[in-house]
Order: sequence, then structure tokens, then C-alpha cells
Amino acid sequence: MDRDEQAIRSVIATWMEASAAGDLERVLALMDDDVVFLGAGRPPMRGKNGFAAANKAMEGRVRVEGTAEIQEIRVSGDWAYVWNQLKVTMRPLDGGTPTHLSGPALSVFRKKSDGAWLIYRDANMISPQGP
Amino acid sequence: MDRDEQAIRSVIATWMEASAAGDLERVLALMDDDVVFLGAGRPPMRGKNGFAAANKAMEGRVRVEGTAEIQEIRVSGDWAYVWNQLKVTMRPLDGGTPTHLSGPALSVFRKKSDGAWLIYRDANMISPQGP
Repeated sequence: MDRDEQAIRSVIATWMEASAAGDLERVLALMDDDVVFLGAGRPPMRGKNGFAAANKAMEGRVRVEGTAEIQEIRVSGDWAYVWNQLKVTMRPLDGGTPTHLSGPALSVFRKKSDGAWLIYRDANMISPQGP
Repeated sequence: MDRDEQAIRSVIATWMEASAAGDLERVLALMDDDVVFLGAGRPPMRGKNGFAAANKAMEGRVRVEGTAEIQEIRVSGDWAYVWNQLKVTMRPLDGGTPTHLSGPALSVFRKKSDGAWLIYRDANMISPQGP
């Protein structure tokens, strides 16, 4: 496995780990300032600031635990895309019933001048009825 | 606008036009043999053959009319990604009530050795509640 692919796999593993730990700062460090998160039924979530604001609104209310099965990584120069199959559990910290979501995600990664790979675009297709 | 971006825009325009006309052969000519279509709540649809089979099952029953507002195209070598905002109307040919869907799509395009750009991966996030 080449170095770029290994670096991207490490970003994904760190993302899942930091999300489950509720470590927002560590999650934010994995995305480009100009990241855009796309999903069904909602407007695009733009920028690291947009992600931080949305996550702070949930802070202390829910833990997001998940696994990502990487289906494909393709690198071309300083750009790459990744297809993941995700399984996510949203676990309310007050002991409420957890929500299980699953489905694919297609993400675009960008290599910065310092060699770090960051998430740049993300298409999230998880749902309660996901495969 | 550079030549690759122009070619990709032309594929998208042809896709919308050929879909509305029900011209499956012309739509199929715009995708790679190994294309994968991803969406929420369903397994990945794999290959030109998978797309053809799913569309033949709908043949003569519904017309798919839509518009694609291109938000971003980025080319890196023989690879590119495109973020679209889609509006789609599924119009039953028996005169039934049409369904309106909207939302984003994130697609990966691949340039073939003959210079043609084809759709290779597609993440579709249109829904009845789309923005």
C-alpha cells in the first residue's frame, strides 16, 4: 500500500476514534478549512466553522460511534476519493434509545503542501434503512 | 474554461437530455463499464449492466426530467470530481402524480485513453425533502 493511501486510511481511522471520544478539536484537524459536507434533505454544510457550530450544538447530548469499511481509495496527484460503507450509532448520553444508521459515503481528500491529507468534500448517504 | 471541464459539462448536459428523452443507450454511453451508483437506503448499483437492468425495469413507465446546477468541477490528471445540485421530476407516463426530488450529487469522472470523460462513481442525495 502506498504512502498516500496509508495516510488517508489513518485520517479515516482517527476520524472514527475522535468522533466516538467526542474530541471535536481532533476531528476538526482532519478537515480542510473549506470542507463541504453534503447529505440528503439538508443544505450543504460549509467550512470547518460550519461543522464546528453544528457539532457544538450537539455537544454533551449524543455520542457518535461508528465503523468505516473502506471499499476503494484512488489517488491522483494531490487529490483522492474514498468510498466507504459506514455503520453509525448515535447514542444519547441521557440513556435514550440509540439510532442506528448505515450506508455509503463518497469523500474527496486533498493533500496539503505539508503532505497531510484532509477531507475536502463529503457525500454522506447513511440512513436508518441503509444496507 | 479548459477543455476537460468543458467535456465534463457536456457529459452532464447530455445525461439530463438523454434521460428526459428516455434514450437509455445514449445515457449508457456516458458511463464507465465499471461505474458504481451510490444512494441512501439501497445497496450500491454496480456496472453499466446494473444500471441498464434497473432502467429497463422502469421503461415505458416513468420519464425522468431534471436540471443539474454545477457547483464545482475539479480535474486532477485523468480524474475529476463534480458537485451538482439536482432537481428531478419523476413523471409517470400513465398520467399519475409526478414526484419531485432535489438535493446534491457528488460524482467522480474518469478520462479514458481516447480523451472521453465518463461517469465512474456517483453519490446521489436527492430526496423529496431536498434543498
